[in-house]
Amino acid sequence: MTEATEARPHHRHLEQARSQIIELLNRQSVEREWMARSTQAGGKPDVVAALITRQQQAALETRLSQFHPSDIAFVLESLPPEARQAAWRLVRPERRGAVLLEAANAVCAGLVQNMPLEEIISAVRPLASQDIADVLSELPEELRQQVLERLDRGDQAEVRSALSFPDGSVGAVMAMDFLSVREDTTLEAVHRLLRRQKQLPPHTSEIIVVDRAGALRGVLALERLLLQEPETLVHEVMTPNATYFYTDDPVKDAVASFEKYGLISAPVVSLHQQVVGRITVDTVLDEVRQRADSESLRQVGLSEDEDLFAPVLPSAKNRWPWLGLNLLTAFAASRVIGAFEEVIVQLVALAALMPIVASIGGNTGNQTVALVIRGLALNQLGPSQLRAMLRKEFAVASVNGLMWGGALGLATLLIYQQWALALVIAAAVLLNLWAAAAGGVFIPLTLQRFGRDPVMGSSVLLTALTDSMGFFIFLGLAAIFLV
Amino acid sequence: MTEATEARPHHRHLEQARSQIIELLNRQSVEREWMARSTQAGGKPDVVAALITRQQQAALETRLSQFHPSDIAFVLESLPPEARQAAWRLVRPERRGAVLLEAANAVCAGLVQNMPLEEIISAVRPLASQDIADVLSELPEELRQQVLERLDRGDQAEVRSALSFPDGSVGAVMAMDFLSVREDTTLEAVHRLLRRQKQLPPHTSEIIVVDRAGALRGVLALERLLLQEPETLVHEVMTPNATYFYTDDPVKDAVASFEKYGLISAPVVSLHQQVVGRITVDTVLDEVRQRADSESLRQVGLSEDEDLFAPVLPSAKNRWPWLGLNLLTAFAASRVIGAFEEVIVQLVALAALMPIVASIGGNTGNQTVALVIRGLALNQLGPSQLRAMLRKEFAVASVNGLMWGGALGLATLLIYQQWALALVIAAAVLLNLWAAAAGGVFIPLTLQRFGRDPVMGSSVLLTALTDSMGFFIFLGLAAIFLV
Repeated sequence: MTEATEARPHHRHLEQARSQIIELLNRQSVEREWMARSTQAGGKPDVVAALITRQQQAALETRLSQFHPSDIAFVLESLPPEARQAAWRLVRPERRGAVLLEAANAVCAGLVQNMPLEEIISAVRPLASQDIADVLSELPEELRQQVLERLDRGDQAEVRSALSFPDGSVGAVMAMDFLSVREDTTLEAVHRLLRRQKQLPPHTSEIIVVDRAGALRGVLALERLLLQEPETLVHEVMTPNATYFYTDDPVKDAVASFEKYGLISAPVVSLHQQVVGRITVDTVLDEVRQRADSESLRQVGLSEDEDLFAPVLPSAKNRWPWLGLNLLTAFAASRVIGAFEEVIVQLVALAALMPIVASIGGNTGNQTVALVIRGLALNQLGPSQLRAMLRKEFAVASVNGLMWGGALGLATLLIYQQWALALVIAAAVLLNLWAAAAGGVFIPLTLQRFGRDPVMGSSVLLTALTDSMGFFIFLGLAAIFLV
Repeated sequence: MTEATEARPHHRHLEQARSQIIELLNRQSVEREWMARSTQAGGKPDVVAALITRQQQAALETRLSQFHPSDIAFVLESLPPEARQAAWRLVRPERRGAVLLEAANAVCAGLVQNMPLEEIISAVRPLASQDIADVLSELPEELRQQVLERLDRGDQAEVRSALSFPDGSVGAVMAMDFLSVREDTTLEAVHRLLRRQKQLPPHTSEIIVVDRAGALRGVLALERLLLQEPETLVHEVMTPNATYFYTDDPVKDAVASFEKYGLISAPVVSLHQQVVGRITVDTVLDEVRQRADSESLRQVGLSEDEDLFAPVLPSAKNRWPWLGLNLLTAFAASRVIGAFEEVIVQLVALAALMPIVASIGGNTGNQTVALVIRGLALNQLGPSQLRAMLRKEFAVASVNGLMWGGALGLATLLIYQQWALALVIAAAVLLNLWAAAAGGVFIPLTLQRFGRDPVMGSSVLLTALTDSMGFFIFLGLAAIFLV
């Protein structure tokens, strides 16, 4: 959640200030390292240097304290681990909770795990329950329980309830602080109720209207409260058909609705239709950004937790499943070539040309995959659309196969002066593009059908197909027609 | 902009309703085609069938009219072109503007270009100026001018001004309707001013505070208006350091600020500090989504305008630059192999093994590229971070090169029973992973430095590098040590 009272100047000045402080903190950490080394090496600790460092620290602390928690989180994320820990100690204790909330998951977990239990508790205690849950969800089970036990009883119950919703559900990201009124209240009474609060919960653009049992009846926009006569009853001016969500709805459905209808906040109800919270646009924006970020990483088999400064061995391990899979498929394609070794010995030009056939198949196929994945994400691939798409992709593959196959045949003719070889490579390109079109459509669909993430597996499977098929078609045709 | 009065039930019911109507419209269009054919073929037009069709049409029209404009846009996007045109005629004229606004760019342009001028004008006239500009920006220049000339004079000026801002600037997406007050007004006076409006501009969460000259002084949250005493002066309760944007700021900077600070709306000022509009969170959400959508398409060289039903020839052309570039780089790699043909003839196993070395290099390199592109997007790659990242990527490449190179060497030994060949391939993998790490870091950085889009070109350049280097290193080592 943001703090409305923070200074938020124009972003250009801010960017400058941020870069400056990142460079300062970096330099400091290098200097400190250098001093530590010279002390170890037997040199005397330089009292003057230490004094200067202490003054610099105080100056840095003051500058950091003028930043918005989000900007402090950004600064921390931009620092290598040792400098990050040093900078973290400069953040004032009362702001640490807000900063943790804004930091990337891996960074947040790293910072918290280096803090004494007392500090963790005093950092998270001032946060709203759903925000405490957000921070705690990054911690190892044991530490999470230790922190939980030290919270106030009311917070504890709310945090436990927030933690109980599965990842990726609306319940796990909803805010639990909301204002509700009954529909037979007058606007004047609602206004009185509001004035009794010192501040409204963040992103309150509407008040939730409930019946006696706490079930959702509609929402009352703050705007109506300002524009309508005080004696009007809530149910006369509320929006009865407000978009709402169940706690177990997937967050991505909520994201789609917020985008479509331009919502600021929406009520969340339990399976018994009781209002239990609300989901706000800032949460939605975070989700969209995180999904977009992680998508390009998932395409190459990386988890989103690997940041720029992750240690070497975990980073290497992070990439193993993907590389292992890749090695396996490349090995399979290599065995296809191995089966044609006799043909290659007789016509060694085949060895030079075969990677082209495989590569162009992989590239066109991945274009089809990207279109299909977008279609799936937008929910636009029903049975009739699928047929239309398949027809179109085959037609495009035919056009491109004839054109680029022809161009490649011509180049082959110029280099190797063999008509038959030129025709074989042109035909192989066309056939491999058809295989790529079929694979490009069906691989992501099949992965999705079996509950796998098409973003993560499609490209590697498609390349396995187009490589093996490319080698097989080209060398097979060559075996039949050329030797 | 959304219409707050539309029915927005729970999204699950909506999804069902949408799928039903999409299937109905699709089936209708198939039936109509069938009827047209049987009439052409000499059969009598079946009067009963025509009557039934007309009744169905009326029923469909009624159902569509209960949908939110966004959902109608979704339905239209999910239909192939002929069915889309037929469905568009069922949308009531007074709602067409709102639907156009929500439709994807290519779909919107397609629909408008098939409409008579009169219909276009009556569709867009009820929209806000920035929304008219949004629709017009998709049209060909001539048609755009024709529509512009027929608008009311005031709208015309505002629309022209909105169209004059460059694509991707805050000015091009800002809303021009905003409420402003002076800082020496009392809250009571502000409240009176609001009541004179029947409705506030959409997503008004705060009122902009200006001085006599119209320059930005701060913002007044609606919440303050509700909670504070009526006799309070605006400047006592306004937020003076509100985040604001210049008309020529890039939209992506605004997106970053909205995300970080959880904003709902922010004032936009001209270069003379005069408030000229505001940018709202729904615009920001649309931008984030569009960028995310287009990123995965740009990675494979596609423009975002290609929808599922784009015609074949334009779709094929859309893919040409990418395929041509790919063919060129594959051809270059092929020439590297060509240079080693004599070595391959002497040891044909090289032909089967060389694609593995190239492929594993491409895969690890693309993982590095994905991390660097994310670092660039988040603005986190300053000089010191770059050094840290480079060190880390080389270390990871070394670990993975030794491990997977070793595994591949072992497999080679098992199949070909040649120690020397096994050692050569293991060394080639390690060396190519180093090349991939260097390329993965520097290719996106260099593209960005020269003002190109790293998302679009990095992967194809990296693969060109790792393919050529993979073949060169492996065959070169083989030439030295094996034959």
